[in-house]
Amino acid sequence: MNFQPHADDTPMPVVDLAIVEANLKRMQAYCDQHGLKLRPHIKTHKMPGLAKWQMELGAVGITCQKLGEAEIMIDAGITDILISYPLIGPVKAARLAALARKATLAVVADSTLAIDTAAEAAEAADAPISVFIEFESGGRRAGVGSPSEALELAKRISGAPGLIFGGLMTYPLGPEAAALIAAAQSLFAAEGLAIPTISAGGTPRAFHAHEVPGVTELRVGTYIYNDRNTVGQGAATLDDCALHIEATVVSRPTADRAIIDAGSKTLSSDLTPGGAARGYGLMRDYPEAVIAKLNEEHGIVDLSACARRPEIGETVRIIPNHVCVVVNLHDEILMTRPGAPDVLMPVDARGRSR
Amino acid sequence: MNFQPHADDTPMPVVDLAIVEANLKRMQAYCDQHGLKLRPHIKTHKMPGLAKWQMELGAVGITCQKLGEAEIMIDAGITDILISYPLIGPVKAARLAALARKATLAVVADSTLAIDTAAEAAEAADAPISVFIEFESGGRRAGVGSPSEALELAKRISGAPGLIFGGLMTYPLGPEAAALIAAAQSLFAAEGLAIPTISAGGTPRAFHAHEVPGVTELRVGTYIYNDRNTVGQGAATLDDCALHIEATVVSRPTADRAIIDAGSKTLSSDLTPGGAARGYGLMRDYPEAVIAKLNEEHGIVDLSACARRPEIGETVRIIPNHVCVVVNLHDEILMTRPGAPDVLMPVDARGRSR
Repeated sequence: MNFQPHADDTPMPVVDLAIVEANLKRMQAYCDQHGLKLRPHIKTHKMPGLAKWQMELGAVGITCQKLGEAEIMIDAGITDILISYPLIGPVKAARLAALARKATLAVVADSTLAIDTAAEAAEAADAPISVFIEFESGGRRAGVGSPSEALELAKRISGAPGLIFGGLMTYPLGPEAAALIAAAQSLFAAEGLAIPTISAGGTPRAFHAHEVPGVTELRVGTYIYNDRNTVGQGAATLDDCALHIEATVVSRPTADRAIIDAGSKTLSSDLTPGGAARGYGLMRDYPEAVIAKLNEEHGIVDLSACARRPEIGETVRIIPNHVCVVVNLHDEILMTRPGAPDVLMPVDARGRSR
Repeated sequence: MNFQPHADDTPMPVVDLAIVEANLKRMQAYCDQHGLKLRPHIKTHKMPGLAKWQMELGAVGITCQKLGEAEIMIDAGITDILISYPLIGPVKAARLAALARKATLAVVADSTLAIDTAAEAAEAADAPISVFIEFESGGRRAGVGSPSEALELAKRISGAPGLIFGGLMTYPLGPEAAALIAAAQSLFAAEGLAIPTISAGGTPRAFHAHEVPGVTELRVGTYIYNDRNTVGQGAATLDDCALHIEATVVSRPTADRAIIDAGSKTLSSDLTPGGAARGYGLMRDYPEAVIAKLNEEHGIVDLSACARRPEIGETVRIIPNHVCVVVNLHDEILMTRPGAPDVLMPVDARGRSR
């Protein structure tokens, strides 16, 4: 019953490790050039082996979004982790405490409750935990909206036994970041409170991080694989996309329509932000084709603009719109490198959203 | 490291088995009343235990979308499966053959290549395989467009050693179904070819299947849990929704904005078809709230229309837009029943898209 899947069993996520290596080295070189610390976000790849490769190349540690991801990474031997997410309540505190006994941990807060949760964990673990203040810089997600709120929370962190004020962080690096950082630096300096790290996140604006004075650390995830979004946002080229989905044309019901065996359970339903590009992914070899609709296991492809059209039974390559959510759908990825045998690798932290 | 998650560790999919039972019995009763065979689609729940419950209640067998799902179900002892998907090529034929040695199998075709793949499997297995012809009834997905094409393929099936012509199938039960079925029945009768089964799929129109003359079998999946879509389509009420996501409010950056710990890796990015309802799910206790945007692990909730608003740290319940893709994101689901202990159950066929 256990057939070993291979590239001609589809749908299959396939990674080119030569492209991965180039992507990792490019980002590390950029950070080195500008004196930025690189703390890659593993939410994109979710594999300890790739996290270790990032650290061997110069990363100072890793970023996780959820405790479940950090548990997998610490089990694999990684010892310096920022969980860039507010953890709230006693269950999260207990899990955080278990990790703080084994690794150097930082978390993020924009509320007193998140700080108190970290303090509860630090006390239970009898180990220090760093806490960053998240600030809003235009992304309209989480984060405090003013330097004075940040200062108030930073004082609470500094006053809590077991907690260390780690600095400020934001995601994405929005248009309001520079002014907020400058204002916070003045305010904190006037109070005699140092800001050890100012951490910015997001691949799309990564190569502009040095243009924002004060930023000292970069958290980026997508750059390891890239995708149609990072290409559209100018942070990569199509040749920098290390992951594609291999799919098969399983039906050609009309001249203008193809059905591929990759649907929303393979490609996700993520569209490109603002509809920058059409459809649910780019068919690499048929760029005029539009993956117009996804059912769970069917991709419905509009071929009307294609001069050349794929035949039934043909394998096609798809660059996903958003690679992070695609990786999270798959238990395994086929890792390839020119001249080396293909290896099917588990996505260890897949689905670890708790 | 292995904390046993429970309902207050979030985000967590939670199922009420009392609602499941009522949903299963309602659909079985409908089928019994109208003389329809029920062949539930397991793509929604992906659990052998629930598939066996469906069969105990009267289902004639199950439907799977992919070979990987069928492998899990057959390993668990289920012996009558329709794979409602065109399988193409030698790798799929080899996997299909392995299953045909162990269970009664049917597959679906709308091309000669799919029929030839099934024939290759039947020969390799030395076991018969039924093949249904998929026809187009308005869904514009796969399927032949005319009764004459169906007849031609049916003849090819009947002429292939090891293959049995299973009948006709369509998804969804579109507006063109009745006319096509009637025309096919005439044409096949004129050729002396019996149509053993006419199979229709899809929960939204399930309770109207008896209105389409000729339909003998119903393939439905979503009805076991229901979701915001089936409610919007009139096939269920909110009280029939057996699965919700339990999430925590982790940030309240402004009066009008809440951040929940359920993002697109928990809820998927599926919107409601045609934008029938707003946002990425229904907050059961705050129906005026709009889950306006999802990042991977953040749900950004617009509270501006809410008189009462959730506090940071509060647990909220979310009815997903499309439960099938939500289940496929989670390795485990918390099964609950009033008066019984909660049980965390694995989603055995999760991610089995090959």
